[in-house]
Amino acid sequence: MSSRRALSFHALEGIPEVEPGADLAALHLAAAERTGIELTDGILVLCQKIVSKAEGRLVDLSEVEPRDEAIEIAEEHQKDPRHIELVLRETRRVVRRGHGVLICETHHGFVCANAGVDLSNTPQDGIAILLPTDPDASARKLRGQLMDRGAGPLAVIITDTFGRPWREGLVDIAIGSAGIAPIEDLRGQGDRRGRELVVTTPASVDALAAGAGLLMGKAAGTPSVWVTGVPLIGDGDVAQDLVREPATDLFR
Amino acid sequence: MSSRRALSFHALEGIPEVEPGADLAALHLAAAERTGIELTDGILVLCQKIVSKAEGRLVDLSEVEPRDEAIEIAEEHQKDPRHIELVLRETRRVVRRGHGVLICETHHGFVCANAGVDLSNTPQDGIAILLPTDPDASARKLRGQLMDRGAGPLAVIITDTFGRPWREGLVDIAIGSAGIAPIEDLRGQGDRRGRELVVTTPASVDALAAGAGLLMGKAAGTPSVWVTGVPLIGDGDVAQDLVREPATDLFR
Repeated sequence: MSSRRALSFHALEGIPEVEPGADLAALHLAAAERTGIELTDGILVLCQKIVSKAEGRLVDLSEVEPRDEAIEIAEEHQKDPRHIELVLRETRRVVRRGHGVLICETHHGFVCANAGVDLSNTPQDGIAILLPTDPDASARKLRGQLMDRGAGPLAVIITDTFGRPWREGLVDIAIGSAGIAPIEDLRGQGDRRGRELVVTTPASVDALAAGAGLLMGKAAGTPSVWVTGVPLIGDGDVAQDLVREPATDLFR
Repeated sequence: MSSRRALSFHALEGIPEVEPGADLAALHLAAAERTGIELTDGILVLCQKIVSKAEGRLVDLSEVEPRDEAIEIAEEHQKDPRHIELVLRETRRVVRRGHGVLICETHHGFVCANAGVDLSNTPQDGIAILLPTDPDASARKLRGQLMDRGAGPLAVIITDTFGRPWREGLVDIAIGSAGIAPIEDLRGQGDRRGRELVVTTPASVDALAAGAGLLMGKAAGTPSVWVTGVPLIGDGDVAQDLVREPATDLFR
């Protein structure tokens, strides 16, 4: 830790609108070259939207048949019942409902508004974007492809923008990763005075996601950020490791 | 937003153990000089611990008389009853209790473990550190002192390390700030296709806190980080603006 003195975050320039089937590795290698950055010894942080688009996680609302429950919820909250139908399909458990928002636990275990089903920043009106089915696998795949083409060592983090209980505003968090430990475990290390730190487990991938989010600006067409200065220690799957087990979760 | 292409985070070197009454502005100006950084056009992110120490928010546990409720809670969770007494004094409302943790709403409105009362990284055993009474005022004061001595323009963010519901691991968040808008309001701007973004309100100060936290490492004696690349737009008080109003909070 003490050798870590500086971090930098660079937006990758010129990532185009991503189409289903797009080669994300090729797009990022081209963007890095355009930006004058070599994808070596760093972390590629990219927002979920372009991963979902490349993976074809798009649904045409006109083809969605809402169930009765979706119609009822939509009426109550002035929403599109087809949107709510998609939200319910992506949901394992509705955690809260109110103020026009459905807070859902997704099948991955993420707790977020509308189970991550988004109608903005879509390729056209009437298209919904769903979260990637397995964001850790998406990150592993992209990392593998980048390294196969000569980039790396590097890690990949896929982010989404979540609200939080009790706090206004949104921050980006990591929903998938490869090549970096999602939690940096400092337990057992001493504090400055040598006493054991009992609970010091920084969620490094979430902090990286949040920092990168400062450059992503939803409106600016900057879906990807390259981060240097964080040593790539460990590996691990974010969806698996950062989702709190029900048994230790005081907020189920 | 689109002009924001790169961010950098630099740890300030050689901030000593902070004593009550310490001149934080002088310590930071000296550390910046030592690090070879000019405190101009950037954001100073510092952890709450050194602010609390400078402000004398330290309590000797041997002088704390626990109330009956504190003794009961401490027995149940194998804690020091004097620690629990301090937690209760700092608490407006106990939000959850279990797994050896008290999740409290502080008098500021923050929801965090043990109301932010910490027994690690203290100057000596048997001393507890409390959160600053008014972290926004602390940030304003430090910013004013730095600018009076020729630094700036700059913003100041004071951070603490919080857990989150549903997610493992800890991230740093902003508990006080001055000289920067805590939430960057993008509502009304269009997405790439010109459609209005309905809910896009990044909590920029929390993202800056999280990113800076990557360099702070509790054990490493790095309480302060200098961030450049984020335009200083607006002002505002974090404690006031980022604490969600009960009326719109689905997780009260």
